[in-house]
Amino acid sequence: MPPLHQAPRGTRDFYPEDMAVRRHIEAAWRKASIDHGFDEVDGPTFEHLDLYTVKSGEGIVNELFSFRRAGGESTYALRPEFTPTLARMVAAKGASLPVPTKWFAIPSFFRAERPQRGRLREFFQWNVDVVGQGGAKADAEVIAVAVGALERLGLGPGDVQVRLSHRRAVANILARLGIAEDRLPAAFELLDRRDKLEPEAFARRSGELGLAGDTLARFDGLVRATVPVSESIEGLVRAAAIPEADVIDLVEMRSALEAVGIADWCRYDLGIVRGLAYYTGTVFEIHAVGAVERAVAGGGRYDGLIELFGGAPTPACGFGMGDVVLGLLLEERGLLGGADGHAGLLPRPDVFVIAAGSEAAEQLLLPLVTEFRRAGLHARHTYRATRNVGKLLGEASRSRARFAVILGQELERPEGPQAMVKDLLSGAQRPVLLASVVKEIAATA
Amino acid sequence: MPPLHQAPRGTRDFYPEDMAVRRHIEAAWRKASIDHGFDEVDGPTFEHLDLYTVKSGEGIVNELFSFRRAGGESTYALRPEFTPTLARMVAAKGASLPVPTKWFAIPSFFRAERPQRGRLREFFQWNVDVVGQGGAKADAEVIAVAVGALERLGLGPGDVQVRLSHRRAVANILARLGIAEDRLPAAFELLDRRDKLEPEAFARRSGELGLAGDTLARFDGLVRATVPVSESIEGLVRAAAIPEADVIDLVEMRSALEAVGIADWCRYDLGIVRGLAYYTGTVFEIHAVGAVERAVAGGGRYDGLIELFGGAPTPACGFGMGDVVLGLLLEERGLLGGADGHAGLLPRPDVFVIAAGSEAAEQLLLPLVTEFRRAGLHARHTYRATRNVGKLLGEASRSRARFAVILGQELERPEGPQAMVKDLLSGAQRPVLLASVVKEIAATA
Repeated sequence: MPPLHQAPRGTRDFYPEDMAVRRHIEAAWRKASIDHGFDEVDGPTFEHLDLYTVKSGEGIVNELFSFRRAGGESTYALRPEFTPTLARMVAAKGASLPVPTKWFAIPSFFRAERPQRGRLREFFQWNVDVVGQGGAKADAEVIAVAVGALERLGLGPGDVQVRLSHRRAVANILARLGIAEDRLPAAFELLDRRDKLEPEAFARRSGELGLAGDTLARFDGLVRATVPVSESIEGLVRAAAIPEADVIDLVEMRSALEAVGIADWCRYDLGIVRGLAYYTGTVFEIHAVGAVERAVAGGGRYDGLIELFGGAPTPACGFGMGDVVLGLLLEERGLLGGADGHAGLLPRPDVFVIAAGSEAAEQLLLPLVTEFRRAGLHARHTYRATRNVGKLLGEASRSRARFAVILGQELERPEGPQAMVKDLLSGAQRPVLLASVVKEIAATA
Repeated sequence: MPPLHQAPRGTRDFYPEDMAVRRHIEAAWRKASIDHGFDEVDGPTFEHLDLYTVKSGEGIVNELFSFRRAGGESTYALRPEFTPTLARMVAAKGASLPVPTKWFAIPSFFRAERPQRGRLREFFQWNVDVVGQGGAKADAEVIAVAVGALERLGLGPGDVQVRLSHRRAVANILARLGIAEDRLPAAFELLDRRDKLEPEAFARRSGELGLAGDTLARFDGLVRATVPVSESIEGLVRAAAIPEADVIDLVEMRSALEAVGIADWCRYDLGIVRGLAYYTGTVFEIHAVGAVERAVAGGGRYDGLIELFGGAPTPACGFGMGDVVLGLLLEERGLLGGADGHAGLLPRPDVFVIAAGSEAAEQLLLPLVTEFRRAGLHARHTYRATRNVGKLLGEASRSRARFAVILGQELERPEGPQAMVKDLLSGAQRPVLLASVVKEIAATA
């Protein structure tokens, strides 16, 4: 026998129950996007390699799967993220796009790195972007879409937190603490690594930025504290002797988040940086409460990026949310299907048609199943040879069908042939005229 | 200004209206699959390269985009089709899968060839397979799923035809005409090229197979005639002095196709071969009536393939239907959106909320929009500064919203504040208590 083939390392086979989980997550993403007025877009699965060095530099190349066509001249790369494609597509259309342009996408992405828990070589990621609109209201709307999907998946503010900061507010604070402008990038990098560094290393590297004694204590206190958005960020910064005016962007975010009803999901966290250098304003991450996993989602405002790809100067704000970390969280919280496990997420058949005798099996079964399907109902039947109605009702129940229709038991009535219809949830059953059984089940299913 | 970046040749950017078309087609594919009791699956976007040489030989390699990870040892290829992944996944699970296993998938595929009309380097293809079940009924069910989706997309038997043949029936006929068994592959290849060859070349190559004079005329007549399934294939073969027993498989297909109500979509066409060598029984293609384009879909029975990938001997039947040729056909028939064009396929907003004054805009607009979205409704509002209700109603209409809700015009009533609700289809409007406007619109939308 030939050897069995394996899926490539870091990729996934989606058997029906796995696919049901994926579609369940995607459905929540799509529904939240559409309800918030976003239009779906997509781009190619691979792009010219140089599209990815525009934003990320040559360093990205080793993290990509890249290739050429045999005899071809172009080098391509499997997409590692959506933003460069989005920027390219926005730049190509220019002023003909609506203002704002509100787009979402649910593509698969690829990273040529070592697979580990929560991080695969191929994964799905939801991207949501508002392009052409600046300001806290647009930022809050983007965050509200993310929260909307998480809420639809069964999560609440006790499960996940949006941690948010603002590049300009943090830059103001760093300047106030005496950090020179040319050291801001190094300071942001230090903030970004805050949780990965030992306290001594953090203090030493803060010292290299010129922070020591009282300023270091104020810096450390600010970047390690997280405050619910509904509480006072003003109080926190005042305690560190920072004027409120420095964090006006964060104060405006509070009003905007309150207006869309999600302030209770959000905390200020001045240590949130989002490593990518291109963010210019609000930055946020969504984390499971008390989790050791990576962020469920991350994003922010990137007002300079469209221009970098050849477009007009265009404000923009967005986020990405991957399926892998989110899937682990939903699994852990028991939110992927009920008592049936993941099978509970599979589409439920409306009807399972059973033939009690050979004549019904040969004459009636397939035409009735076909009639159900033509009416837009999910209809199943057995492929086994048995005519044992008890066994077939068992198969119908295991298929999770809503109704069973039994043919061939009560065919002869003055009004015409009948079928027995059994409600597989309540167990109740009653005869129904064969001529109207599709209409009756369509009305109930 | 930096130069604009382009999508790779032969790939597509899906702007919102393009995406709406793609989702419209996918929705019909998915609905037909699920109603027929198929479960959705998927595999990785890339596989080990050698997975594709198992079935297609080394010749396939130049048609693939293949790559390695920097420093990695494995060679991967972007998937050009689904069957090898399906065979691998079936073989891996073995006897633990249900009998039959009914799977569908809607992945994207990649071919490193010259793009041309109807043929791109990246495309989407619907795959439907019944695994573990032999016989004409399973073949007919697979064809019925394809027809079900086409019907849902607005096509009828006057638009598309299923042309079907059977490898065993054709092999019987060829043997009856005196073609030796070792020449059967060459004869199938000739049949496959029938429409591409000039009559002289066809006759010459038939001669090389040992066909001449009367046998050549009988062969030519059989492979060029197409007969509606509801008419007599027996008559056609009898006219060529072939015993009916030779084409019993085709006769059985007629009963099976009639049982699922699609015989009027189908024609026998003994010239249908499907180049791929792995088909073992029924083969079929779906073509637009009178079209010059490639087939909309093609498939058949491949009972030896799962074994080739290391599984147990397993009967199987399936087809693939790509989005490109189908999209061209639907476009040509005017079936992609109505008077609004492709925009008619975009999700329609349930409600567009308008603030008639500054107070309403600042206090009421976003909370009400949020309340609509929390209730699962697709709600939009303007991002412009204007409070001109006429202009905003124009924007609401252009968004194709079902209802407009106008805040701030009739706020003060003894029963509580009110909003004006305007039905944007009928033009009728009436005041509704603000406290119940979400419930009322949710009930109608």
